[in-house]
Amino acid sequence: MADGSDTAGGRLGEFGRIARFFRPLTNGVDGALNLEDDAALLSAPDAGAYALSVDTLTEGIHFIGDEPPDLIARKAVRVNLSDLAGMGARPVGYFLALSLPPTIDDEWVAEFARGLAEDQAEFGWSLLGGDSTSSEKRVSVTVTAVGDVAPGSALRRSGGKPGDAVFVSGSIGDAAFGLGVAQGRFFEIAETKPLLDRYRLPQPRVELGLAMAGVAHAGMDISDGLVADLRHLCEASGVGARIEAAEIPLSGAASSLIADDPSLFIEALTGGDDYELLVCGPEDAILEAAAEIDVSLRRIGRLVETPGIAVVDRDGHAISFEREGYRHD
Amino acid sequence: MADGSDTAGGRLGEFGRIARFFRPLTNGVDGALNLEDDAALLSAPDAGAYALSVDTLTEGIHFIGDEPPDLIARKAVRVNLSDLAGMGARPVGYFLALSLPPTIDDEWVAEFARGLAEDQAEFGWSLLGGDSTSSEKRVSVTVTAVGDVAPGSALRRSGGKPGDAVFVSGSIGDAAFGLGVAQGRFFEIAETKPLLDRYRLPQPRVELGLAMAGVAHAGMDISDGLVADLRHLCEASGVGARIEAAEIPLSGAASSLIADDPSLFIEALTGGDDYELLVCGPEDAILEAAAEIDVSLRRIGRLVETPGIAVVDRDGHAISFEREGYRHD
Repeated sequence: MADGSDTAGGRLGEFGRIARFFRPLTNGVDGALNLEDDAALLSAPDAGAYALSVDTLTEGIHFIGDEPPDLIARKAVRVNLSDLAGMGARPVGYFLALSLPPTIDDEWVAEFARGLAEDQAEFGWSLLGGDSTSSEKRVSVTVTAVGDVAPGSALRRSGGKPGDAVFVSGSIGDAAFGLGVAQGRFFEIAETKPLLDRYRLPQPRVELGLAMAGVAHAGMDISDGLVADLRHLCEASGVGARIEAAEIPLSGAASSLIADDPSLFIEALTGGDDYELLVCGPEDAILEAAAEIDVSLRRIGRLVETPGIAVVDRDGHAISFEREGYRHD
Repeated sequence: MADGSDTAGGRLGEFGRIARFFRPLTNGVDGALNLEDDAALLSAPDAGAYALSVDTLTEGIHFIGDEPPDLIARKAVRVNLSDLAGMGARPVGYFLALSLPPTIDDEWVAEFARGLAEDQAEFGWSLLGGDSTSSEKRVSVTVTAVGDVAPGSALRRSGGKPGDAVFVSGSIGDAAFGLGVAQGRFFEIAETKPLLDRYRLPQPRVELGLAMAGVAHAGMDISDGLVADLRHLCEASGVGARIEAAEIPLSGAASSLIADDPSLFIEALTGGDDYELLVCGPEDAILEAAAEIDVSLRRIGRLVETPGIAVVDRDGHAISFEREGYRHD
C-alpha cells in the first residue's frame, strides 16, 4: 500500500493503529463518535427494530492463517452480513473486536483494514466501534453486525407452515468442497479456484433477504450445512420437510466432483459455510419478490406436517445422513 | 452444581450447551428470540438512543486462566457495564461470543453461566444472543453490551471545559496492586485480598453514570489508568488538567503500600483496570446528583486551558510520569 513503507514490520500500538487504520472506516457517521468514546450511539432504527448478530472467526479453526489479511477481514464481516440477510435486515454498521498476536505487523493490519473498506463500499455500511487487544498466538476476529428491519416482517425460523415451498439461493456445497481444496483434496479436478473462492469469501445474500422480508413465512442463512439448518428451521416451526435431491442446486464444479464420486453429494448437503439463504413460504409470491434480484432461487421441496427431514431421490427413496452438519464441537 | 454430575468432564456440544446453559439467561425477553434465530431484534430504545460497547478478554492476556469460571464471566460482563456507565447509559442486554478450547468441560461452562446469571440479577439485564465457537488452546470472551441513553445527555469525552471540577469515584490503583498480588508481589502486606478482589471483579459504576448523564460536562470510565484516561478526555475536549496528588482517593491497603514505597504512587495512577468513573463539570451540580448514590466521589482537580496533565504535590511541584498507562501493545 502507498503509505505502508514507513511502518512495514512495525507496530504502531493500539491507539496509533485505531487512528490510522480504523477511524477512517467510520466514514464520519455520527454514532461512531469518531471512535473516541466508551460506546457508540445508535438513534432509533428507521425500520422499527435493530437486528443484531455476533460471530467470531478464530485462526486455526475458521481460517488457516496464511490467507491474505483482506480476505480474513471480508469473511469475518460477510458471515455476519449473511446473518442479517437471514433475518431480512438492512445493514447499518458493525463493531469489530480484534485480538492480534505480537507477530502481526502494521502492514498486515493495513491490508486487513483495506479489506474492510472494500466491503463497506459494497454493502453500504460503516464501522461503528470495537476493541483492539493482544492475544498470545492466534488472530481472532469478532464482528457484531447491526441491521434494521420492521419487526413484523423479519425473517424468522419459526414461521414455516406445512405446504410452504422450500427454496435455496445460489448453489450448495461449493464452500465445503473449497475447504477440501484448501486441505489438499480434489487436486485432480481442473477448476478448483471457484470452490476455493466460495470457501474463502462468502457472498451474503443481503438483497435477497431484503426482498424476502414480509414475503416468506420463514428463513435463515445456511451456515452449518443445508440439512442441519433445514432441521433447525423445521424444529423452530414445528414442521418437517420433504426435499427432492435432484432439485438441490449445484455448481458445475460441484456437479463434476459428485459425478466422479456420488458419495460427495452427502458432503455437499452437510458441509458448512454455504452462506446461501433458505426461505419457505408461498411459491408464487417468493418467486415474484425475487425476480429482480440477481441471485438464482431454486425450489427444492416442501414443508410437511410430519417432523423430520426427508431427502428423496428420483425414485422416492430417502437418503440417509449420518452427520448432519458442522456442529462447532 | 446440582445438575452437573451427569455431564462432569463431558461436552454437550454447541447446541446442547446453548440450550442448557445459555437459553435460560435470556429470561424469555422477546428480542432474544429464544436464541433460535440468526440475529436478535431490538425495538426502538426507550431513552432515544442505544449505547453499544464491545470488549474482549483473552486467557493469558486479560486473565490468567486459573480463575474460577464464574469470575471470568463476571469480569467480562463488568468491563462492558463499566463502558455503559462511562456513557451514562442504562444496561439493556448483552451478546456473548465465547471461544472455548477442547479442554473446557461442561462443568466449567455451567459455572461460567452461573456467574453470568448472578450479575444479570445484580445489574438487571439479560443475554440477547451470541456465538459459541471452538478455539485451539485459549478461552476468549467478547461481550457486546447494549444500553440506552438520551443522545443529548450521554457522557462524552469531548464536553470538558476549562474550570470544570474533575472527579473520580471510589479509589484508584487497587486493581493494579491486585494484579501485582496475583503475580506474587506485595506478599509482605497483611490485606492482599481486597486488592486481588478489585483486580478480579470490577465494580462498574452504573448508578453513578446514570446520575451523571445530563449533569456532568464530560465523563468516561477509567480502564487504562487514571493519567492515561484523563489525557484521553482532555485531548477530546481540547483542554488540560491540573490534579492535586494529595486528593487522589486511595484505599487503606493502597495507602499502606505507598507509605512503604512512595514510588508505588506512580503505579496507582498509571495502572489499568480501575473501572472507576472520571467526570468533569460544575462541582455543586455533580455533588448534588451523586448525593444519593452509594459511591464516594472525590474532586481531584480542575480542567484548565493549557493542554497537558499536571499532577502536583502539596508544594505545587509537578510529578513526572514516564509510562502513562496500559497501552495494549
